[in-house]
Amino acid sequence: MTANAHLLILHPRSLNIFKPSTTTINTFLLLHSSSLVSKTLKTCSLSSLSSNLTHNYFSNITQIPISPYHLRRGRRNHFSSVSSILNENGDGGRPGTISNPSLPPPIVEKIDVNPPKGTRDFPPEEMRFRTWLFNNFREVSRLFGFEEVDYPVLESEALYIRKAGEEIKDQLYGFEDRGNRRVALRPELTPSLARVVIQKGKSVALPIKWFAIGQCWRYERMTRGRRREHYQWNMDIIGVPEITAEAELISSIVTFFKRLGITSSDVGFKVSSRKLLQEVLQRYSVPEDLFSKVCVIIDKMEKIPMDEIKRELKLVGVSEDAIEQLLQVLTIKSLSELEEILGPSGDAVSDLKSLFLLADKFGYSDWIQFDASIVRGLAYYTGIVFEGFDRERKLRAICGGGRYDRLLSTFGGDDLPACGFGFGDAVIVELLKEKGLLPELSPQVENIVCSLDPELQGAASQVATILREKGQSVDLVLESKSLKWVFKRAARINAGRLILVGNSEWQKGMVVVKILDTGEQFDVKVDQLE
Amino acid sequence: MTANAHLLILHPRSLNIFKPSTTTINTFLLLHSSSLVSKTLKTCSLSSLSSNLTHNYFSNITQIPISPYHLRRGRRNHFSSVSSILNENGDGGRPGTISNPSLPPPIVEKIDVNPPKGTRDFPPEEMRFRTWLFNNFREVSRLFGFEEVDYPVLESEALYIRKAGEEIKDQLYGFEDRGNRRVALRPELTPSLARVVIQKGKSVALPIKWFAIGQCWRYERMTRGRRREHYQWNMDIIGVPEITAEAELISSIVTFFKRLGITSSDVGFKVSSRKLLQEVLQRYSVPEDLFSKVCVIIDKMEKIPMDEIKRELKLVGVSEDAIEQLLQVLTIKSLSELEEILGPSGDAVSDLKSLFLLADKFGYSDWIQFDASIVRGLAYYTGIVFEGFDRERKLRAICGGGRYDRLLSTFGGDDLPACGFGFGDAVIVELLKEKGLLPELSPQVENIVCSLDPELQGAASQVATILREKGQSVDLVLESKSLKWVFKRAARINAGRLILVGNSEWQKGMVVVKILDTGEQFDVKVDQLE
Repeated sequence: MTANAHLLILHPRSLNIFKPSTTTINTFLLLHSSSLVSKTLKTCSLSSLSSNLTHNYFSNITQIPISPYHLRRGRRNHFSSVSSILNENGDGGRPGTISNPSLPPPIVEKIDVNPPKGTRDFPPEEMRFRTWLFNNFREVSRLFGFEEVDYPVLESEALYIRKAGEEIKDQLYGFEDRGNRRVALRPELTPSLARVVIQKGKSVALPIKWFAIGQCWRYERMTRGRRREHYQWNMDIIGVPEITAEAELISSIVTFFKRLGITSSDVGFKVSSRKLLQEVLQRYSVPEDLFSKVCVIIDKMEKIPMDEIKRELKLVGVSEDAIEQLLQVLTIKSLSELEEILGPSGDAVSDLKSLFLLADKFGYSDWIQFDASIVRGLAYYTGIVFEGFDRERKLRAICGGGRYDRLLSTFGGDDLPACGFGFGDAVIVELLKEKGLLPELSPQVENIVCSLDPELQGAASQVATILREKGQSVDLVLESKSLKWVFKRAARINAGRLILVGNSEWQKGMVVVKILDTGEQFDVKVDQLE
Repeated sequence: MTANAHLLILHPRSLNIFKPSTTTINTFLLLHSSSLVSKTLKTCSLSSLSSNLTHNYFSNITQIPISPYHLRRGRRNHFSSVSSILNENGDGGRPGTISNPSLPPPIVEKIDVNPPKGTRDFPPEEMRFRTWLFNNFREVSRLFGFEEVDYPVLESEALYIRKAGEEIKDQLYGFEDRGNRRVALRPELTPSLARVVIQKGKSVALPIKWFAIGQCWRYERMTRGRRREHYQWNMDIIGVPEITAEAELISSIVTFFKRLGITSSDVGFKVSSRKLLQEVLQRYSVPEDLFSKVCVIIDKMEKIPMDEIKRELKLVGVSEDAIEQLLQVLTIKSLSELEEILGPSGDAVSDLKSLFLLADKFGYSDWIQFDASIVRGLAYYTGIVFEGFDRERKLRAICGGGRYDRLLSTFGGDDLPACGFGFGDAVIVELLKEKGLLPELSPQVENIVCSLDPELQGAASQVATILREKGQSVDLVLESKSLKWVFKRAARINAGRLILVGNSEWQKGMVVVKILDTGEQFDVKVDQLE
């Protein structure tokens, strides 16, 4: 530290507000917003420095060793020569002396032009796809008579605190707001739904059939190309204890798949019931309050080794006998085998039988299969659980859901029978790619309107207004451009017609209309434009 | 503290993970998530406690004095009796002894069912309105040939750091994420747009015409019923230096107003140019880099006293002469008067003249007026600025925008001519209410399908599927309900037809169709349902 002094530099635009608080500071750091940061963030603690600084908004930090000469110079000049030091040392952190002591012009560092790690921008080509996907979510929800709702993307963190050790809770994107409230970017939509249902109380008639399309956040290590945000389509039915509700929900997802060209040979649904586990646990007198913990552990079966699963189950207090029976039941893939083991009288078997009967009536029998190993990772499910999977088993679960009849009481409300599903916008894209079903979505505009003379720009505006008032979309050329440029743009934005406002036609109250597909061209009276 | 020991209780669902870290703890606090908290939050510091606790997620805190008896009891029982203590002491913090030593059943405290302060839920009735409003935003944007885009709601905080002292920067909803990055919920959309435009570089053809509808956040004190989030419709044109761009943008807002039934006697646009201030500042040799600071100060003229404005201008280094001239120019309401003062050769006058000429061609002259006092509060505007206002002057600005030709270089990119506007979802609602133009939006579903016999639930599912495959929306009754209940629900969801699946008709492959408006009723073959 003494031999190799370090340099503390603020973001170039903050230089003039930085003043060392004492004369003994001999370590300086560079705070800026470039990509250098990731390499050097670990070499110092931001918080240990922040008390020395008056400026709140440094986001990035790096550390550069410099000679005492630099340091003296820097302080004498109130750091106005910082950028020259940076130019010399910024890349490799190489100590050195200044060869040219004249002050260079201030450098505005380029901001990081990428969206924050794990998030996405939606430029037009991405947005067209998102809109197409969401429109399909909405259209299916409409066909099923569901009403759209939404909740704040920022919720009280208390809403997500559950004891079961779910992945979703551990990945909470939480922080303390300026009013010292613990808040979190929502990791899922169901807790918000439960909150609103409790809030509405008896003022809302049952059953509730709501859907939502909302962005959800999880802070996880960025492995396997997973993002920190995704959009999720949820459909929920509150107030229906019958299995018809689950059957209806799966029917809506099947309808969605069919609309996109996905068939039952591409995807299927694995279905089970948590009551199945519950019945096993009851036989071994495992306390009821361990139930959701056990489910969350079992859900990890495909991700962690079986010995670890057993260890965790033992740790929460499940006996070895119960563990063995549990793991055996989970391998069952046929309903009749399950009935042999559990007997015909239990709810698990009868619920599943009802669902398969209804699936037949709805017409999606070939999409669903019983699989006892499905438990889903959320703590609150209580009955039927299901997940959509690709039959080639290349992808993670496409969607998942189930019954959660006791969620409301965990928030202090009165329980209501409830079930729902979540369907993310990530895996479906992979599937559509795999199957060659990703749609080609090009921009579309009905007209491009252009004046042939700068003097006629106002006339072109008039023509655009007339067309727009008739519901026609118009890309109005706002600058004086060559016809070549206009044709190029017309092709790029996929315009249907080119409308040219030229002097001789305009004097007759007319414009030239060119159908771009066919090349047809004719003069049209302005008031007859349609 | 010693005479009146205090009780530390975690949220009921966290009790079993709480273990006092030392045996000397004699102060206990109640952490929970109820509304009690606001009263008592100040009595202790959360951070001073957190090091004693293993659990990260307490959001709320209260303090209850209890007798040593409680304390001993509570610790002996691993706090399983905490809820009984809470029942006795929770309301007034009254110390006392337990009259009934038997353990009551655990009480789950009701969560706060409201969305976080300053945010909104969108239950169906609110969501219908939001969808209607957004659809109008989208339809107008389509008419003008703009493409939709979006950006992450969470951005790097660096994007919003500007030195001009804007309100928007001071209200940043920023925090440090788990990776020690400073991030912020976006307060506006334009910086993200600029970031993406720099990122795309030459790969995107100019001009860019993009629109976005995004939620924006600001952390401000909750006065005047202002919220901490709102949705904002933005339209931006990048790459057009001509005033036609501003004219086009204002035309799109006028089109939007007209669609909603709002006329030029309800609202208008005040228009000015920042070049006007620039020309005055240049005359007095005020340095260029003070320009945006001066604009931000002047924008506050309607909110803070004139003496304060003058003081602030002086403070940043504007001479008294320049201040006087500046304030005089700002009172001008006619373009010809402006021309007299500034001369006809400046850009300010010629830009404004061009805009008024174009407004005439577009057909919205009666909507706009020159008003030199309009500067807008964002630092980055450089030319024409405008804002929409209600002529009764009851409301805040409805929307606002302008030219920002030098924003990109502040992020280290190459500048491009640019202009745009933001249009929030708050003030427009007030205006529509004022004018009686808020639409009545009821739920709508084409069919309600119901079986008259539990045995026919599957048949009803079949009928629903047939109708849905034909694009008809269906609310399927999922439970056995009385006909009275079904008619009530049909009325509430505003169903068009009631389709009854009864035994005798079903045996003939038919259902009963009842048109709910007219009461007409007839039997229809299932395969002929449309």
